Amino acid sequence: MSDELAAKVAAALWAEDTASATLGMRLVRVAEGTAVLEMTVRADMVNGHGIAHGGFVFTLADSAFAFACNSRNQVTVAQGCDIVFIAPAQRGDVLVAEARERASYGRNGIYDVTVRRGDDLIAEFRGRSRQLSGTVLKSGPESCTESGSESGSESDSEYTVIESGVEESS
Amino acid sequence: MSDELAAKVAAALWAEDTASATLGMRLVRVAEGTAVLEMTVRADMVNGHGIAHGGFVFTLADSAFAFACNSRNQVTVAQGCDIVFIAPAQRGDVLVAEARERASYGRNGIYDVTVRRGDDLIAEFRGRSRQLSGTVLKSGPESCTESGSESGSESDSEYTVIESGVEESS
Amino acid sequence: MSDELAAKVAAALWAEDTASATLGMRLVRVAEGTAVLEMTVRADMVNGHGIAHGGFVFTLADSAFAFACNSRNQVTVAQGCDIVFIAPAQRGDVLVAEARERASYGRNGIYDVTVRRGDDLIAEFRGRSRQLSGTVLKSGPESCTESGSESGSESDSEYTVIESGVEESS
Amino acid sequence: MSDELAAKVAAALWAEDTASATLGMRLVRVAEGTAVLEMTVRADMVNGHGIAHGGFVFTLADSAFAFACNSRNQVTVAQGCDIVFIAPAQRGDVLVAEARERASYGRNGIYDVTVRRGDDLIAEFRGRSRQLSGTVLKSGPESCTESGSESGSESDSEYTVIESGVEESS
Repeated sequence: MSDELAAKVAAALWAEDTASATLGMRLVRVAEGTAVLEMTVRADMVNGHGIAHGGFVFTLADSAFAFACNSRNQVTVAQGCDIVFIAPAQRGDVLVAEARERASYGRNGIYDVTVRRGDDLIAEFRGRSRQLSGTVLKSGPESCTESGSESGSESDSEYTVIESGVEESS
Repeated sequence: MSDELAAKVAAALWAEDTASATLGMRLVRVAEGTAVLEMTVRADMVNGHGIAHGGFVFTLADSAFAFACNSRNQVTVAQGCDIVFIAPAQRGDVLVAEARERASYGRNGIYDVTVRRGDDLIAEFRGRSRQLSGTVLKSGPESCTESGSESGSESDSEYTVIESGVEESS
Repeated sequence: MSDELAAKVAAALWAEDTASATLGMRLVRVAEGTAVLEMTVRADMVNGHGIAHGGFVFTLADSAFAFACNSRNQVTVAQGCDIVFIAPAQRGDVLVAEARERASYGRNGIYDVTVRRGDDLIAEFRGRSRQLSGTVLKSGPESCTESGSESGSESDSEYTVIESGVEESS
Repeated sequence: MSDELAAKVAAALWAEDTASATLGMRLVRVAEGTAVLEMTVRADMVNGHGIAHGGFVFTLADSAFAFACNSRNQVTVAQGCDIVFIAPAQRGDVLVAEARERASYGRNGIYDVTVRRGDDLIAEFRGRSRQLSGTVLKSGPESCTESGSESGSESDSEYTVIESGVEESS
């Protein structure tokens, strides 16, 4: 049941997203509190040595984090993230980011994301999330967009939705 | 003198780079231990709400970090980074990332990068760097590429060059 | 004026504190958004090599962070912290931790703390703070303790006061 | 076999340690790549509200990290750590810190440490480790102390041993 909800939320996030689609991300799996995304390192993501810019590795991990932390249909944003770069990725590599919830307390969460190329570790990422008011799925008059902007003085000083839509795997 | 070197290094990094050029980054200023880059948030960097994906904010900060930590002509890579998201960026915003060296010890460094839109804070980033052997600027038989691959067992287990080329401001 | 308030708040925090007093910390300077504390590395803070346990270096930095982020009289707690260890400290070393506010947004803050021994860098620390309701200084019926416990569902799921009292330098 | 080695290493670390003993830490379990320590929050670890100073929660986690990352008998030190404070600990609480290796690459490692009080989450900690030359256990002329000081130019600029000895559970 909750995994069905996670799938619906993922579809809604994807429908509104441009950034992750442009980067060619694909949704491999999503369930309550977890998400797996993959992305192929393209020619425009590398430097002259054919090595991926760390920012794209981060962006993939960040998208996996967003799908995992929004999977319960509560609008949830990133407060901050830490990434450790373990090995460089090369042009043409297929990177897989697996996000899992480690802790949830009040409106806060901690998610661990591991980025791999096959069996090789590429990066370890930890994200800190915070729920805003509102749900991702529209229900009658309330929508993700509206609830995002309605969350009052609290949300004015906090980062707002960074969800990254992803392509459903076929 | 060292600022002249920083400018030469920046030009060399830019010439080899595809990723940052594709993202439309521009080099505003570079000097020893510091660099300022800017980037306009494009339509393909946002989600359906017109809000920038956090990954692109990170990528801008990461590029500023790379230019600053390579500014002394030693090939230097990111070991890891932490980012705190302060406020969302919107489509069309011009984001400016200013990187400054905070600490340098042995082959390690700590750099702070602040991302702003005008006077508004968007994100605070801290990067941890590590020098590899070799120089960015080619001198005779040694080149950045070669030295990167020559650094032996040490570099085999560490992240390799994440330099991000940037456009020199005109 | 605000620096006078910071001094009063520091005195109130110190009066209630046992932990920092027991560790022998001393308050060197406090002002709005900043604090400097020092601590001598004692025999019971080291391992068999005479090298300070990193936990005590962190604790000193954390106390400086607490004095700085509470300096405006709003009860403020640590959400999380990152520390980079730069050089070991030895028994007998006098460590000085200087905390400065880097960013403030809504109820959140970012503070940088540098720990030094003379001119030598020992550690760089970054703390993320969050204001709760209530003030540090008691005013009529409201006290720091009471407001801490009155802050409702929000505070139930967040870390509570970590202030560390410090001795005023004589 | 490797778990036997981990037990021997733990005993050697403990024999040289003053800091963790003074804080009353106890070793619950140690095996290759993992360690569990516990500590009771004492009156001298709290502030006036009876709430534990965050520094002592960190120190417990840091000790568990040290036992886990040294468990293979290679002298290994902390490069840096991040902690998220989830709930406050009170005087008299028995805190249990469980450290587990998440990633190992070259001389680097990433360890996750969860601090709990019974079933309650208190903090999540992530440590970044780096091996130095030398072994923890003395073997003939080489000792942990000597190897620590012999590790040459590399170690000169890196943090040195933070291991924290712990009492073997009886």
